[in-house]
Amino acid sequence: MTAVQRRTSRDIRTANRYAVLRQVIAGSPASRQKLAAATGLSLATVANLVGELIERRMVLEVGFEESDGGRPRGLVAANPRGGVLIGVDLGETFIHAEAYDLRLEVLATAGGEFGADESRPDAVADRITAAVTEVAAKAAVHGEVLGVGVSVPGQVDRERGIAVFAPNWDWRDVPLHDLLAARLPGPLHLDNPMRAAMAAELWFGAARDCADAVAVILGTGVGAGLAVGGALHRGRSNSAGEWGHTTLVLDGRPCRCGNRGCVEAYTGAPGIMRTLAELRPGSPLLREGDQQATVRGLGRAAAGGDSDALAVVEETARCLGAGVADLVNLLNPEVVVLSSWVAEALGETLVRAVRGAVAARALARPWGATRIALSRLGSSAVSLGAASFALEGALAPLRGRLAG
Amino acid sequence: MTAVQRRTSRDIRTANRYAVLRQVIAGSPASRQKLAAATGLSLATVANLVGELIERRMVLEVGFEESDGGRPRGLVAANPRGGVLIGVDLGETFIHAEAYDLRLEVLATAGGEFGADESRPDAVADRITAAVTEVAAKAAVHGEVLGVGVSVPGQVDRERGIAVFAPNWDWRDVPLHDLLAARLPGPLHLDNPMRAAMAAELWFGAARDCADAVAVILGTGVGAGLAVGGALHRGRSNSAGEWGHTTLVLDGRPCRCGNRGCVEAYTGAPGIMRTLAELRPGSPLLREGDQQATVRGLGRAAAGGDSDALAVVEETARCLGAGVADLVNLLNPEVVVLSSWVAEALGETLVRAVRGAVAARALARPWGATRIALSRLGSSAVSLGAASFALEGALAPLRGRLAG
Repeated sequence: MTAVQRRTSRDIRTANRYAVLRQVIAGSPASRQKLAAATGLSLATVANLVGELIERRMVLEVGFEESDGGRPRGLVAANPRGGVLIGVDLGETFIHAEAYDLRLEVLATAGGEFGADESRPDAVADRITAAVTEVAAKAAVHGEVLGVGVSVPGQVDRERGIAVFAPNWDWRDVPLHDLLAARLPGPLHLDNPMRAAMAAELWFGAARDCADAVAVILGTGVGAGLAVGGALHRGRSNSAGEWGHTTLVLDGRPCRCGNRGCVEAYTGAPGIMRTLAELRPGSPLLREGDQQATVRGLGRAAAGGDSDALAVVEETARCLGAGVADLVNLLNPEVVVLSSWVAEALGETLVRAVRGAVAARALARPWGATRIALSRLGSSAVSLGAASFALEGALAPLRGRLAG
Repeated sequence: MTAVQRRTSRDIRTANRYAVLRQVIAGSPASRQKLAAATGLSLATVANLVGELIERRMVLEVGFEESDGGRPRGLVAANPRGGVLIGVDLGETFIHAEAYDLRLEVLATAGGEFGADESRPDAVADRITAAVTEVAAKAAVHGEVLGVGVSVPGQVDRERGIAVFAPNWDWRDVPLHDLLAARLPGPLHLDNPMRAAMAAELWFGAARDCADAVAVILGTGVGAGLAVGGALHRGRSNSAGEWGHTTLVLDGRPCRCGNRGCVEAYTGAPGIMRTLAELRPGSPLLREGDQQATVRGLGRAAAGGDSDALAVVEETARCLGAGVADLVNLLNPEVVVLSSWVAEALGETLVRAVRGAVAARALARPWGATRIALSRLGSSAVSLGAASFALEGALAPLRGRLAG
């Protein structure tokens, strides 16, 4: 069956409810007429769904809009006391948790760094629990916790709440739902940073109002969140987006996935360190064993015109540009957003060089339809996206073990 | 706006009408209840849409289904005399036109080969007109021509009916709609072979019942039709799918797109000929200047166990496998269908080797969710897909110059 065939009426209703609430959050206060125009749904359907959201106290009537002669139109907005959403960005060496109200405004933040050796599943579960408990306590006055979205690195089985594969931690089939569910203040919604970052860019970032978009994640690992037709593309087993493990140089550098020549081996933080070591052996810019210090130092030096740093950024951009040109030629997106800490550290110096490299490689027609932008969401992108998953989950009828 | 937001109620109605008619064609005769279950639409919506299709004489009442006790259920089927659809596959050296009834059964076929030097736009337009006129005349007894779908190589502006870029013919912005519209017996629907082949695989081929799928086109040119959520992914400017121009070997072989190291430079027919010349210089298998003879000869020799031919197929499969592994890792599809004449010529020898190469390179989770299959639609795939575009167009309200 096609997806169209697989979707039940209930799924469609959940999706429509989510589309309406997204619009309410994006453009509060809004009339039902405006919501109907923005979603393509009929006014009757919108009125019906808004009624449900009001009944759940997620949306409030907030007044009336002036209109020319006709009846005044009622306005609705997201209820800031209608419940709390929690988003957790679990990185390979840090955790960042945020609590949001239903307008997706930040109520509380918690987290910090930890050593790469502190990656045992039970230790990580303790860390998630502590951060979530902390932000939930601070946000308690805004209502009950409607859901907890958690992003973990690697591949994730959302339905079963399992971290299937996280190579940097050597995690395989870690049952995070079982480790966490009883300790969290709301239902767990597990996913990964590629999809969380893409969701955040669609809601609030550079991909807002885009149908087809890519969020490129540049950190220790590299990947791409994909949006098609305004929705996340997850693929058959929720593992779409492994662009970091597509081939850039057949038989090239070894990659931690076991393969050779992957995009990640040239554009992830360890790959950039290797490029630096190859191009400028003995450079003081290389801080062995410290990715963050090396990459952030490179970014500062390149911005200041240091020729060694610029050479490394140029070579990184050449590889990254070839990989982004692949995304442009294959997917023909409206925007490619460069996101996560390596993109932030190398900043506009990197983005300018990448634009040049993509322009030299991509086909004219898709390239003419694409922008390349640096994410403006900063370090909150992934937790914001994770919270949006919690919101989406809260709109579905409760069902299955993950919602229990 | 997201795609959801952009879709008007009329677009949604057209899409639903198309979904219902697809199901009628796929499973005739069908009850409205079965159509509702298969599409996820309500019974009332389906009854309404079926009523419209009956009014247009595209669908017929054909009897009743036995049911256990309840009222007998009416059955509907596509009307074999409800109109004619024409699909044209214009290749770089051949044209293949077919006329279909509304069950998408073939009524008539026309076409033939032509020289690569006969690619002037007016000569090509004459050739298309002649082939369409021939099949339309043969099929006239089945009703009026509801639409003519034409697939041309390269990138296409569907809305304006323009062949934007076809590198092998050096075509740029050829106004096919203006050259053809007045000479065709029905509205023109222009697209390219990647999307036409993907549509055909979704309707009748190896991707039937799949949500996420890829149709890899291996011919002189190389590309990929993409299906996401059961529908074609076209991208921002209808140029998604240029997988042939994604990088396999940074700074590798020159490609006719002007770039270096593209997938097409290793896996298209000219690339395979180059691989043969490099691996086995002076081999009698190489028929200089004749792609078809060389590749078909390689396929026959490899199937017969010839070690030179097998070496070339193995090396081609290694490159193709790396490129297909990229599709698997990035898109996580249910099936990758290998299609067009090079895939047909190298057959199961190629497919087996590609499976091995992909297995060695793709990540375990997406690879575990994917099949790799050889197309079973043969030389009709693209014309069938083009006819499906004509059908889709016939279900939309007439509008714009392409429908005029």
